[in-house]
Amino acid sequence: MKVILGSGAYHMAEEIKNKAEKFGKTVVEVEIKTFPDGEKYVRVLGDGEEALVIQSTFNPQNEHLIELLLLGDALKEKGFKHLKAVVPYLAYSRQDRVTKKGEPISVRAIMKMIGLYYDELYVFDLHNPKTLEFFPGKAVNLSPAKAIAKYFEDNLDNGLVLAPDKGALERAKAVADILGLDFSYFEKKRISPTEVQMTPVDVDVKGKNVLIVDDIISTGGTMIKAANILRNMGADKIFVVATHGVFAEGAIERVSAAVDELAVINTIPTPVSKISIVEDILGL
Amino acid sequence: MKVILGSGAYHMAEEIKNKAEKFGKTVVEVEIKTFPDGEKYVRVLGDGEEALVIQSTFNPQNEHLIELLLLGDALKEKGFKHLKAVVPYLAYSRQDRVTKKGEPISVRAIMKMIGLYYDELYVFDLHNPKTLEFFPGKAVNLSPAKAIAKYFEDNLDNGLVLAPDKGALERAKAVADILGLDFSYFEKKRISPTEVQMTPVDVDVKGKNVLIVDDIISTGGTMIKAANILRNMGADKIFVVATHGVFAEGAIERVSAAVDELAVINTIPTPVSKISIVEDILGL
Repeated sequence: MKVILGSGAYHMAEEIKNKAEKFGKTVVEVEIKTFPDGEKYVRVLGDGEEALVIQSTFNPQNEHLIELLLLGDALKEKGFKHLKAVVPYLAYSRQDRVTKKGEPISVRAIMKMIGLYYDELYVFDLHNPKTLEFFPGKAVNLSPAKAIAKYFEDNLDNGLVLAPDKGALERAKAVADILGLDFSYFEKKRISPTEVQMTPVDVDVKGKNVLIVDDIISTGGTMIKAANILRNMGADKIFVVATHGVFAEGAIERVSAAVDELAVINTIPTPVSKISIVEDILGL
Repeated sequence: MKVILGSGAYHMAEEIKNKAEKFGKTVVEVEIKTFPDGEKYVRVLGDGEEALVIQSTFNPQNEHLIELLLLGDALKEKGFKHLKAVVPYLAYSRQDRVTKKGEPISVRAIMKMIGLYYDELYVFDLHNPKTLEFFPGKAVNLSPAKAIAKYFEDNLDNGLVLAPDKGALERAKAVADILGLDFSYFEKKRISPTEVQMTPVDVDVKGKNVLIVDDIISTGGTMIKAANILRNMGADKIFVVATHGVFAEGAIERVSAAVDELAVINTIPTPVSKISIVEDILGL
């Protein structure tokens, strides 16, 4: 199996190159550049039958998406028969339903586009896993729970895993189960038009090391609020982790200041993308 | 028929809104914005059966392309049955063949992508018209010859239309035929590794007003060279026109300085996009 790196995987390139052989894979060189008029140019410098194309589609997401499309065309043109797309962070995944009449289901359009050339699609911790149905081929939602558990295992003696809301409970449970820890979630209750009360349900956090697990951190507001509540309730260390660090400006600093450690998976390159899913990818 | 404007058609919006009714069409309002994380948002504020979506895909072309895709999804979701895409300038149209092994045929990938939602595709003066075959539905290459002829007709008494090379001859002929003028082309002959000689074939340019017609102007080098040769041969006025002004930095100024007038079609908004194809579009 040949491994192809799009520019949305350059931040994992070194690790992938170092570990590919161990997983029986060969990294194929690819030339990627942007013409002066803004058009993307790609060229695949290797041959094969099956390719694993790794391309995360963070900002500039539209460029990364078109690049993924062009790589698919180049590989098929070169004679590759079976293409797997690994898109650790899938752009437009949060635009998964029509909330106001006239909107698209953007993630559907993106999945169809990837399906033009790719036979299989692998994503991590998709915002709405049901949207995988829009992909015409085989589509798999991978969990980063193992990577998260491994990263935090030494810090969670006397630990507890919490989800910031009930909808994220399964994600917290997956990490807790690996580490043999208790888990729960924050119940959110609107107490005024501008204020939401958050309470951890059925757990005593006093003296505990708590890991809060979410899929995406953007402004970080929920995480900071949750951390402050835990602190007031007597929690010991507070760790925050998310799969995708789609940080708004200043969010990393604000969350970091409120907790003992902030870490995200490297689906998006950020200064706190300390947890790698490269081995999960190379295992595909 | 409903008309939908993408952000790649905003530079024609006023003219389209003013003339739509004359062509029996209604412009539907569309909300288009960019989220803070870089993702595009579109929303169609109207209903109908058939839509003409106008979206030129100049730089930032990847954004314009994804936006066209999302508009297609929104329109189908809204119940539109038949979608026509008008893409006056089609990005990636020059990447129409594999020149080095491992390259994609990028224009093929783009046509397939547009074909996911659109039943018909209309482009202007496509670099390689054969590539229309890659579009799964009906695909039409429109000529801007009428618009060009109309714009220059008052300046071409005692005129002549020239193509900068033999490959562009049909384009020059189309304009010349409308105006009832002679036409020819420049023969290019390499006289040293760095120098190409250009000679107008079988025409006397002395005292003539000459219009040079091409599909794309980028650096403008060829046009400047052609203009200087004509000037030395005693031509009177020299006009340069192209369909797509994909100008490199400073090209507009350099070409303008070398000729009596430079004008391009408004497939791409530039300071010299003086010739409009809005009526051609509304006639579809």
